[in-house]
Amino acid sequence: MTASAVSRILLTGFEPFDKDSINPSWEVARALDGEVIVGGTVHAVQLPCVFGNAMQVLDEALTQLQPALVISLGLAGGRSDITPERVAINLDDARIPDNAGKQPVDEAVVSNAPAAYFSTLPIKAMVRNLREAGIPASVSNTAGTFVCNHVFYALMHRLSRRAAAGVRGGFIHVPALPQQAVKQPGMASMVLEAQISAIREAIRTAMTVQQDLRENAGQLH
Amino acid sequence: MTASAVSRILLTGFEPFDKDSINPSWEVARALDGEVIVGGTVHAVQLPCVFGNAMQVLDEALTQLQPALVISLGLAGGRSDITPERVAINLDDARIPDNAGKQPVDEAVVSNAPAAYFSTLPIKAMVRNLREAGIPASVSNTAGTFVCNHVFYALMHRLSRRAAAGVRGGFIHVPALPQQAVKQPGMASMVLEAQISAIREAIRTAMTVQQDLRENAGQLH
Amino acid sequence: MTASAVSRILLTGFEPFDKDSINPSWEVARALDGEVIVGGTVHAVQLPCVFGNAMQVLDEALTQLQPALVISLGLAGGRSDITPERVAINLDDARIPDNAGKQPVDEAVVSNAPAAYFSTLPIKAMVRNLREAGIPASVSNTAGTFVCNHVFYALMHRLSRRAAAGVRGGFIHVPALPQQAVKQPGMASMVLEAQISAIREAIRTAMTVQQDLRENAGQLH
Amino acid sequence: MTASAVSRILLTGFEPFDKDSINPSWEVARALDGEVIVGGTVHAVQLPCVFGNAMQVLDEALTQLQPALVISLGLAGGRSDITPERVAINLDDARIPDNAGKQPVDEAVVSNAPAAYFSTLPIKAMVRNLREAGIPASVSNTAGTFVCNHVFYALMHRLSRRAAAGVRGGFIHVPALPQQAVKQPGMASMVLEAQISAIREAIRTAMTVQQDLRENAGQLH
Repeated sequence: MTASAVSRILLTGFEPFDKDSINPSWEVARALDGEVIVGGTVHAVQLPCVFGNAMQVLDEALTQLQPALVISLGLAGGRSDITPERVAINLDDARIPDNAGKQPVDEAVVSNAPAAYFSTLPIKAMVRNLREAGIPASVSNTAGTFVCNHVFYALMHRLSRRAAAGVRGGFIHVPALPQQAVKQPGMASMVLEAQISAIREAIRTAMTVQQDLRENAGQLH
Repeated sequence: MTASAVSRILLTGFEPFDKDSINPSWEVARALDGEVIVGGTVHAVQLPCVFGNAMQVLDEALTQLQPALVISLGLAGGRSDITPERVAINLDDARIPDNAGKQPVDEAVVSNAPAAYFSTLPIKAMVRNLREAGIPASVSNTAGTFVCNHVFYALMHRLSRRAAAGVRGGFIHVPALPQQAVKQPGMASMVLEAQISAIREAIRTAMTVQQDLRENAGQLH
Repeated sequence: MTASAVSRILLTGFEPFDKDSINPSWEVARALDGEVIVGGTVHAVQLPCVFGNAMQVLDEALTQLQPALVISLGLAGGRSDITPERVAINLDDARIPDNAGKQPVDEAVVSNAPAAYFSTLPIKAMVRNLREAGIPASVSNTAGTFVCNHVFYALMHRLSRRAAAGVRGGFIHVPALPQQAVKQPGMASMVLEAQISAIREAIRTAMTVQQDLRENAGQLH
Repeated sequence: MTASAVSRILLTGFEPFDKDSINPSWEVARALDGEVIVGGTVHAVQLPCVFGNAMQVLDEALTQLQPALVISLGLAGGRSDITPERVAINLDDARIPDNAGKQPVDEAVVSNAPAAYFSTLPIKAMVRNLREAGIPASVSNTAGTFVCNHVFYALMHRLSRRAAAGVRGGFIHVPALPQQAVKQPGMASMVLEAQISAIREAIRTAMTVQQDLRENAGQLH
């Protein structure tokens, strides 16, 4: 992917879920909507927090925009930092119902498709650049099994097709906002301004770094 | 304590420790220095992170300023929220050496003095007001056994004397700054601006609330 | 305290609470009842998990037994190791109702009494001996503000009176049992046999070590 | 897979690593070696904690034994329960060097192979049965990126070949032993006896349950 004047960047965020009235993933996407970053224009799209429907809205946006880069955002309540996800797995296993009341157990996101896809974003360069900018970040090796992973998997499956050759994409989890954390004592949080700066920097990194860093970011288990 | 035009508020913070180059407790105190809050003027004083010396600098400030309110701040690396401390214990037990290389084990902060003092700040009203302002906060039931607790105990011991009748005081721990957390993956943090707002609000609460709220904020263990 | 043939050791445990059907603190006490450890005979007494009543049952046992050593046990659900408590504070602040539905907020355990008492058990020697025996243990600097701390404070207050000269006492928290942890995924636990061995070793240490170790076991916060 | 008189069960454990002198995964495997469970005989094999070599020793054991069931065990220091792993990913990313000093970063376990494989063990039935037996357990959605995941992936890749039709396999992480946890205050642990019972029960479940339970065991992130 080369950044040209006509590049479009699809940035998705989710509607609120689990009784919350706000979702930072959408607040961040909305704040960056229309911004031009290294020659690419951000197009923010909100996804429903519903299995299936989320994938459908994503598909329509992909078809309509033909973006050169796609980053999907989701809330990871309890995490303290920005976490680019490494791998999407072909599995829905919902601990709580989604916004439409669906609660799939051990179903494939896409039938007869690979077990997993790796992010094609430069996740390690993103983490390094975020830290250098003073924003806590780390690579995550699991995006869970709820609607976030569902969308991440669906995205990578679409991008793996020939027609999407060269289009990079992936998923980044963001922490709760302080106004959410006040309701759950001890929950870590990050202010919206820092989250917006973080995703702007992550996009900038994705638009400029072709070959990811070879730095270890693994977990023993 | 009644807030009058001549009220002085002593706000202490610590110098950096444990190889760090910055300490948010001092950055917050410094930022509020000179500010007038509900008729009281903030006087920021930096304390050395050294057993004994910290207490001495605190004593000098108390003598010199004759403040109507005293709040000491310290860093609690790893905590995610603002934590007004409930109780100071008469014990130094250092897990690491202080900035002068001292590492007392099971020594009294003040010989022949009570085992503990409770904070005389309205800690529950502070927590409620902070949460209402969108800043994560909770009551802490242990200030540890390092220099923070040492200063907290020394402060409360001084304020317990007749001469300090009516002067309220206590200790508040603040989280790490994002720039500190980037060095320790997974560590929670809070931006300086939020920390400053939080302590301003805590001071405002202390200047206006005489009788603390009766809301449970306990721990099972 | 010297261990003689007539030494009596009072070991208390709690009845189940918070919807649980078992409380390891009582299972451990019951298992050691009647056992002779370094010349002392263990007398197990069950305390109700009720503010006030627990203190009363403890008082009766103290009066009746005139023990040479008193150790109260309580459950700390979520902790992974055996934790001798360092300090009892004069404060009840209940996050949940006790077994009688009482939920005191910011009340003194004993009116017009000191803010806190330190354990007079050799808590650091206990921790070292337990670790050497292969049982995870660490010093805790807060026993919370629920019935455990309530009993711990009441005990130390009684032992501080002249009549109890030389009688040592304190509180030890124990982890959940595996059968409790299966209901809360991720909760640490310790099998009953290990908990019994641990408390036997703790009693042995208390009966033989007069002067506690001077090893640091502090917390920064 | 039907359990017959001639069924062989391959159970692997790892040699100690990261300066430890013992590895519970091997202690468990060794303890069950030769045991007959639901008509299958356990064959314990120790794997080196070395990228590549571990896979090679596993391959030899698979060729030699032609087992009907394969379970690989590994230590997850810090986890409190038995965790059957759900998915193996085709990635080595070592946070620390292995026992031979190798520290691969972002390398494939097997080149030109799928991104991931799902365990073919009845992991949810295992978790339910373990909990009913009073042993804490939960499904894990990430086996990390170190030698454990390496072996898990290699195993599933081998079993995916036609020649291994019907042979089920997977990976289970076990907690640290108490004797390991005493060195790291706060680390959860499980006694060896419980770990052995757990893996015996897990094998029994794998030998008898053909269709896994449909119970949610997912994570939001």
